Amino acid sequence: MESCKVVENIYLLVVVTLISVLQNVFFAQKVERECNCKNTHASAFERVSCANRNCMDAYPTFLAVMWCAGLCLSQAPAAFAGIIYLLVRQKYFIGYLGQTSQSTPGYLFGKRIISFLSLMCFVGIFNYLLGRFFGSDYKEYVETITSAASALLLLP
Amino acid sequence: MESCKVVENIYLLVVVTLISVLQNVFFAQKVERECNCKNTHASAFERVSCANRNCMDAYPTFLAVMWCAGLCLSQAPAAFAGIIYLLVRQKYFIGYLGQTSQSTPGYLFGKRIISFLSLMCFVGIFNYLLGRFFGSDYKEYVETITSAASALLLLP
Amino acid sequence: MESCKVVENIYLLVVVTLISVLQNVFFAQKVERECNCKNTHASAFERVSCANRNCMDAYPTFLAVMWCAGLCLSQAPAAFAGIIYLLVRQKYFIGYLGQTSQSTPGYLFGKRIISFLSLMCFVGIFNYLLGRFFGSDYKEYVETITSAASALLLLP
Repeated sequence: MESCKVVENIYLLVVVTLISVLQNVFFAQKVERECNCKNTHASAFERVSCANRNCMDAYPTFLAVMWCAGLCLSQAPAAFAGIIYLLVRQKYFIGYLGQTSQSTPGYLFGKRIISFLSLMCFVGIFNYLLGRFFGSDYKEYVETITSAASALLLLP
Repeated sequence: MESCKVVENIYLLVVVTLISVLQNVFFAQKVERECNCKNTHASAFERVSCANRNCMDAYPTFLAVMWCAGLCLSQAPAAFAGIIYLLVRQKYFIGYLGQTSQSTPGYLFGKRIISFLSLMCFVGIFNYLLGRFFGSDYKEYVETITSAASALLLLP
Repeated sequence: MESCKVVENIYLLVVVTLISVLQNVFFAQKVERECNCKNTHASAFERVSCANRNCMDAYPTFLAVMWCAGLCLSQAPAAFAGIIYLLVRQKYFIGYLGQTSQSTPGYLFGKRIISFLSLMCFVGIFNYLLGRFFGSDYKEYVETITSAASALLLLP
């Protein structure tokens, strides 16, 4: 019963985490394949390895901020933003491979989504502190606003 | 009381996480030592650094999937699979150092364990959704089967 | 109500995690800027990239051990140790950029804080097992001692 309650509050986050793990494995297999392929250009391996490394560097940050946002405020918008982040990451990875090495995309990606998730954490904690010290609880309003605001991430 | 409950459901996962942290520190100290050692071959440093980086790249993925599996389904099989993963990682790291650079092991390792943990997550969430929408709860059966299945990871 | 309880036990950890995410973004932007700057020395990019990578390699370990310590024992000393770690990391990053490449600081940093957090996890689990098998609960004493001991991290 108790354990069911736990799953209820996090299952969307777990689903997004699982999808991100599948994506990581997909990236890693790309690297593995380039690694084993003998008659490859060094630059192709260099590029896929660099793309993978940039994605992996940002991965713990993304996970931490998504779970914090999901736990502090509400899981649905956090999981939705997570899905968008994974799409952006996929596009970044593919784009990195296709580019010539002179014009690689930058080191950072998904800044808007990370900012949104951080903002969710801030709002969640602020709301908690407000409820603790002043007894007022705006959680429902905040959750509604957050869900609506997460749709803005769809804008290109 | 409440806090005790929390610890009860995760203490095995915490133990495995602690062991993995100790292993990370062990890996990092290997790199540190090669780094400081002046009369070393560049290739030895190259190799230990690469082995450490491959292990570190896969570490967040492993942590995420182990904790999700432990929270969603049950902690004992997840922690057991985590221990097996750490042994595989140790073997990979040692094997990487011993090899000549022409025949390094691949980029990926522990694929079977990550798949098993992902499967546990899927089953846990599926079971939760089944319980939510149809009112049936097979959690006990699933936990028993999972515990039995985790023994299969011991096969070489 | 239930969800409020959750936030109550973790909000300090979430705050520290958020600050660490901001620091990560700061590091990443430093790398990004060096990356785009055309008339830069290769060594400057090399150095900032290496400093960022060392910090990122240790980041999942830090997060895992801080959250485990916070969940198993008590969040205030864990969050305090986390803040100290972030300060040490900032100093390490800045120090790395300023050094000549002959005398870079080592690969590891913040060993004392990671050890302290690991010790907190061990104590928390040990205390839980003691309470489970012998019915004695020293959690309050342990928490007081831990809070006092965390002040020792301030020593240089």
